[in-house]
Amino acid sequence: MRTPGRHFLQIPGPTNVPDRILRAMDMPTMDHRSPAFGALGRRVLDGMKTIFKCSGPVIIYPASGTGAWEAALVNTLSPGDAVLMYETGHFASLWRGLASRLGLEPEFLQGDWRSGLHPEAIEDRLREDRAHRIKAVCVVHNETSTGCATRIDAVRKAMDAAGHPALLMVDTISSLASIDFRQDEWGVDVTVGGSQKGLMLPPGLSFNALSDKALAASRSSKLPKSFWSWDEMLTANETGFFPYTPATNLLYGLAEAIDMLHEEGIDNVFQRHARHGEATRRAVEAWGLEVFCREPRHYSGSLTAVLMPEGHSADRFRRVVAETFDMSLGNGLSKVADRVFRIGHLGDFNDLMLAGTLAGVEMGLQLAGVPHERGGVQAALDFLGSTAGRGETRRAAAE
Amino acid sequence: MRTPGRHFLQIPGPTNVPDRILRAMDMPTMDHRSPAFGALGRRVLDGMKTIFKCSGPVIIYPASGTGAWEAALVNTLSPGDAVLMYETGHFASLWRGLASRLGLEPEFLQGDWRSGLHPEAIEDRLREDRAHRIKAVCVVHNETSTGCATRIDAVRKAMDAAGHPALLMVDTISSLASIDFRQDEWGVDVTVGGSQKGLMLPPGLSFNALSDKALAASRSSKLPKSFWSWDEMLTANETGFFPYTPATNLLYGLAEAIDMLHEEGIDNVFQRHARHGEATRRAVEAWGLEVFCREPRHYSGSLTAVLMPEGHSADRFRRVVAETFDMSLGNGLSKVADRVFRIGHLGDFNDLMLAGTLAGVEMGLQLAGVPHERGGVQAALDFLGSTAGRGETRRAAAE
Amino acid sequence: MRTPGRHFLQIPGPTNVPDRILRAMDMPTMDHRSPAFGALGRRVLDGMKTIFKCSGPVIIYPASGTGAWEAALVNTLSPGDAVLMYETGHFASLWRGLASRLGLEPEFLQGDWRSGLHPEAIEDRLREDRAHRIKAVCVVHNETSTGCATRIDAVRKAMDAAGHPALLMVDTISSLASIDFRQDEWGVDVTVGGSQKGLMLPPGLSFNALSDKALAASRSSKLPKSFWSWDEMLTANETGFFPYTPATNLLYGLAEAIDMLHEEGIDNVFQRHARHGEATRRAVEAWGLEVFCREPRHYSGSLTAVLMPEGHSADRFRRVVAETFDMSLGNGLSKVADRVFRIGHLGDFNDLMLAGTLAGVEMGLQLAGVPHERGGVQAALDFLGSTAGRGETRRAAAE
Amino acid sequence: MRTPGRHFLQIPGPTNVPDRILRAMDMPTMDHRSPAFGALGRRVLDGMKTIFKCSGPVIIYPASGTGAWEAALVNTLSPGDAVLMYETGHFASLWRGLASRLGLEPEFLQGDWRSGLHPEAIEDRLREDRAHRIKAVCVVHNETSTGCATRIDAVRKAMDAAGHPALLMVDTISSLASIDFRQDEWGVDVTVGGSQKGLMLPPGLSFNALSDKALAASRSSKLPKSFWSWDEMLTANETGFFPYTPATNLLYGLAEAIDMLHEEGIDNVFQRHARHGEATRRAVEAWGLEVFCREPRHYSGSLTAVLMPEGHSADRFRRVVAETFDMSLGNGLSKVADRVFRIGHLGDFNDLMLAGTLAGVEMGLQLAGVPHERGGVQAALDFLGSTAGRGETRRAAAE
Repeated sequence: MRTPGRHFLQIPGPTNVPDRILRAMDMPTMDHRSPAFGALGRRVLDGMKTIFKCSGPVIIYPASGTGAWEAALVNTLSPGDAVLMYETGHFASLWRGLASRLGLEPEFLQGDWRSGLHPEAIEDRLREDRAHRIKAVCVVHNETSTGCATRIDAVRKAMDAAGHPALLMVDTISSLASIDFRQDEWGVDVTVGGSQKGLMLPPGLSFNALSDKALAASRSSKLPKSFWSWDEMLTANETGFFPYTPATNLLYGLAEAIDMLHEEGIDNVFQRHARHGEATRRAVEAWGLEVFCREPRHYSGSLTAVLMPEGHSADRFRRVVAETFDMSLGNGLSKVADRVFRIGHLGDFNDLMLAGTLAGVEMGLQLAGVPHERGGVQAALDFLGSTAGRGETRRAAAE
Repeated sequence: MRTPGRHFLQIPGPTNVPDRILRAMDMPTMDHRSPAFGALGRRVLDGMKTIFKCSGPVIIYPASGTGAWEAALVNTLSPGDAVLMYETGHFASLWRGLASRLGLEPEFLQGDWRSGLHPEAIEDRLREDRAHRIKAVCVVHNETSTGCATRIDAVRKAMDAAGHPALLMVDTISSLASIDFRQDEWGVDVTVGGSQKGLMLPPGLSFNALSDKALAASRSSKLPKSFWSWDEMLTANETGFFPYTPATNLLYGLAEAIDMLHEEGIDNVFQRHARHGEATRRAVEAWGLEVFCREPRHYSGSLTAVLMPEGHSADRFRRVVAETFDMSLGNGLSKVADRVFRIGHLGDFNDLMLAGTLAGVEMGLQLAGVPHERGGVQAALDFLGSTAGRGETRRAAAE
Repeated sequence: MRTPGRHFLQIPGPTNVPDRILRAMDMPTMDHRSPAFGALGRRVLDGMKTIFKCSGPVIIYPASGTGAWEAALVNTLSPGDAVLMYETGHFASLWRGLASRLGLEPEFLQGDWRSGLHPEAIEDRLREDRAHRIKAVCVVHNETSTGCATRIDAVRKAMDAAGHPALLMVDTISSLASIDFRQDEWGVDVTVGGSQKGLMLPPGLSFNALSDKALAASRSSKLPKSFWSWDEMLTANETGFFPYTPATNLLYGLAEAIDMLHEEGIDNVFQRHARHGEATRRAVEAWGLEVFCREPRHYSGSLTAVLMPEGHSADRFRRVVAETFDMSLGNGLSKVADRVFRIGHLGDFNDLMLAGTLAGVEMGLQLAGVPHERGGVQAALDFLGSTAGRGETRRAAAE
Repeated sequence: MRTPGRHFLQIPGPTNVPDRILRAMDMPTMDHRSPAFGALGRRVLDGMKTIFKCSGPVIIYPASGTGAWEAALVNTLSPGDAVLMYETGHFASLWRGLASRLGLEPEFLQGDWRSGLHPEAIEDRLREDRAHRIKAVCVVHNETSTGCATRIDAVRKAMDAAGHPALLMVDTISSLASIDFRQDEWGVDVTVGGSQKGLMLPPGLSFNALSDKALAASRSSKLPKSFWSWDEMLTANETGFFPYTPATNLLYGLAEAIDMLHEEGIDNVFQRHARHGEATRRAVEAWGLEVFCREPRHYSGSLTAVLMPEGHSADRFRRVVAETFDMSLGNGLSKVADRVFRIGHLGDFNDLMLAGTLAGVEMGLQLAGVPHERGGVQAALDFLGSTAGRGETRRAAAE
């Protein structure tokens, strides 16, 4: 039986791809060695600097996000290098595992998944490392598995306070173009990003944004690499080309996405996400449920993870929601499997889509027999209504 | 400034065109004299019979809905013929005006716009017409301007009770594929339909579904006609072709739309619309506002018109909603301009889209300073939640 | 079995719709009463004046081209009015038939289909009509059935020479945006156009471009009309809106089409078509076949009709081409059914597409056993090669 | 200035993406952890086996083709392993370079680029390697830089004759779904493929097809790997899922592509490519130019490289063609830079597209002042016409 209306894709990515972007990609693939391609290449390579807020080069891989994790490591490090990581959640753990598989020696600072990273732990560990064995600090900006966002500026300060020369690598896969991020200002050396979240594209592109220090490190790095090598990329990118076949049609979409983010205003984009996070948390509170992230300063603008009441299955709840209301919610991963569900509110999203999303959650809680209070949607609407509109629309309303 | 997320197109048509249909139309135009076109032609001509629930032919015009009103009249009537019409609202009035311009003599039974047609009035008038001057009774199934739906079966009974031979013509532009309609069973002679509402297509196609009696009438009709002529259409349609260039790409979409309606089940489609109408009215009631349609048996599944509190402008309210929440609502037309707004809940639509829609109305009422009670969305959710899912999903929820 | 590669749609319309236009139409239908729609409306209404080269208003119908024929007549004329028409071919004959069905009295000057209109015949007939019974002269600019194009400036001169006040109405369905046309300069009163030829859109839109004289005539016209009425259209169009639902998605495409024509340069568009007509005729001549149009000054830039050798079926030949090479060619209509085939070379078309087209014809002639000489493609290439490129590309070639 | 008509993308890949595939990808990205996704995953994973003609698993990477080269090596080999490669051209050289960068020791048998691989050289070298230091033989099926295709069955026989246990790895990037290939029958251990050639998709997906022997080798392989690791892929793929975010929208297109190849018939696809190769070579010969591939048994069905007359620049010629006729041809790479140009005739392609392509080459030769004879297109048409149509269409032609 056909399911009418639009699917609500409220996982924390891939996100809803706007029609403008889908249609931009729905065009004939062009010759990737033609002058017109070179112009497109420069356009997206330069454009991505405005998204990472960086002056150094951005590498665009024709590969999904996990690849960019690998690229960040293999271009800068050598077999056996120690890297300091922090267990903010499932994705930090996956990156740790990836580092191990590549022959690095990750040291994993323990976390309880219910907050972002505590910079003091980084600072303390780096101070101890007087021999500078640790070559890189690798952190996840926004933990997609928990809805906790780490303050990257605080991590930078901790590293500076410790006076440690390690590289700072940051995964912004679920924060880029959703939560404030500033490569240059915050002294990040390698930023890892992906196409399928705040950039509003389908999966298939990923990014490394590079500092001078990262480039210097790449010249002495010994891990084997070829597909991920920055050197050949940088040479070819100078004229807008790529050393091997790029994902041309996704690049069409990327050019459109960059334009759209600037049309809205990148800071407006961040505020929109933050406001939707707050509305969602108000709904969760009104339902009498618990927001998984315990520290308000780490609340995420991209997604909200919700803890299920003891004895209730998050996966069964999600299945009821999917089958009854055609909405996809994010599942709990590894340690919190079946215990949390995640509401994605990132990407191409607005107030009424959020209202529909929260309505699906509230009705789903009821249908699945999960103990809760009514009124979460109402609480969100009260907040959204009282903060809606800016500038012109406010004036129109006050006319 | 770019407006993020999806626009909520909640006018009572054109409706949200599903991606499957947009993509079906986004294909190269084909040779309209090729065998492949003939197969497409027969497919949609036959398919539309399952939507009108008729055995007679359906005419498909490469023209928007107003054209099919004209076609129904010019093919069956002669200059000066009397036609009986009924003032259910703005669109009935427009059809009356169109009949006058074509040289017919419409007699317009008065209505107050707040209910569908009362069949007794038809019956009484027809009984008086012993000379059978009246050649056709023309009624609007669902008045898009008021949200009142007329019982067509009752109109048929009234005509039969009066023993009058007039043709029965019905405008189903905003009811086709949304509200139960049965051309053959209800003895309708010419049904007028359009593509841009329940059929989920962009505007650009319109329909006449014909009874044998209508076909017989067409043979003696004297109104001048050429583009709208049934005769050349019917001849060409036998093999799936058209006497002049058809709107090929819209026909691609129509074929897809017919399939989609059957995938969902046409009766499920009607129930879905009725349920969304009920949820919307519960919201209106909770807000303390008045549903414009006064007679519950005439409530429309396609849209709900809402009366504004005295002294408040519906158009200003709609502007606030449009600017703040990127949602289009229907305006009040002619007699009720600025006094009602209309919520379209027809076409490719589901529970969470409705929740988002009602959330936009509730927040808009607040922002525009329209006196109302909170809780309309909550009331709708209570109803939707308690009636959500059918069959399988119910079972899943009860697991 | 799937047919690989692109279909060659070489009928003289509908033509190949460019991807940019298809994608522009593949976007959500918008509220046709919103401010954004008003802006779109004005954009296309003003834009079409640059295509018709007129200063008066252009009417855009949500209906295919035949409707615009009807509209031109019913808005300006009254029952029983005489109109002078000229038998340039099948479409002139259809327009004549349409005029008759509407209650007009067409007078049909005989032609042999193998040239455009001879203006002297018009002049002679108008001189005879001292009582000015003839209210309009209706001519087809480019006869799609024959590939003969009439000189409209010469028709204007003939009417002026005769000093006759009749309106001049011109069908440009297969010439608009393909063959030079100038509404104002040539004193045309009503120009009829359609979307599916030089405008590169799917069928579904049609046009009337109006002179002041036509507008004046419309005020006393007595033919019944409503859907086609100019008056309500013109009023609504002032702000970019329409009196009834417009074909919104086709208007998206129209806006794109107007931009594309100006990007190429409208005069470059005409030259491109003329050059492709010449290349095609050189191929026909080299094959030893006969171009159906006998008068070089009437050769059409939109299409070339080719006369089959005696005893050979054009339709069988076309079927062989369609089945073997997946190319659609135009058929012979009515008087020349099965005796001519037509090669469309209009719309979004270039040298290599023409080369592929002519290759399909040449191989088809061989496969179908039609007597001919080899070398038609070669002759076309010799011409195309020696006239290819302009400005920059010429310079590049000469480097 | 806008360039009218369709671009001719006649590089040897990326190829022309059919509208059906572009439209299949132009749909909302779905939840990659939903049951519907699992069904899609199994569909494409199973479907690809029918393209590789294999019974073992196929790995689908969300990365372009070069990545699959790397994946084949890092999953099966260990640092310092010797691999035997053969210099068929530029891409074989690139693969060699990639192997070196990864820490392998490639041994590169010399070739002159003007034929495919000579299996005797492989056999001789393997016989010498009594210690079985060589762990893999890596060959390119179709050298995209030269238009020479190696007989993979002969390579298998050579390896068997030598009784050597090395793995056989084959790059089919520009041959898959264009030139006959049989993973199981020919005893290939790892086949490398990409999406953007015979599969008719945009770039962004790549493949490894695995034999049992390759799987066994992967268990003792020591090269570091994570993104490319087969093990996690295979586990997740069992239920149709992926260990990290897949390139969902490209998978939509892949499902459509597999269907389309089977609708045409995979063997018909091979024959079509072979026939277009022959037609192209006949044109080259008629022009008096030289086909770069010297050995007829190695002629490629995917592309034809053409040697420029001494003293004439291939790149200048290609630029003239691009600017004058909006056609992209492939350039000469490294050793043959500026000395050859390449005509791609693979993917979604047909006779008339080939005719247009060859017409562009012939006219371009003339415009660029390259010495040649006229008549290449004619020679191709003579061949295409005499071999056109199969079965039904032949019968129709003979009617």
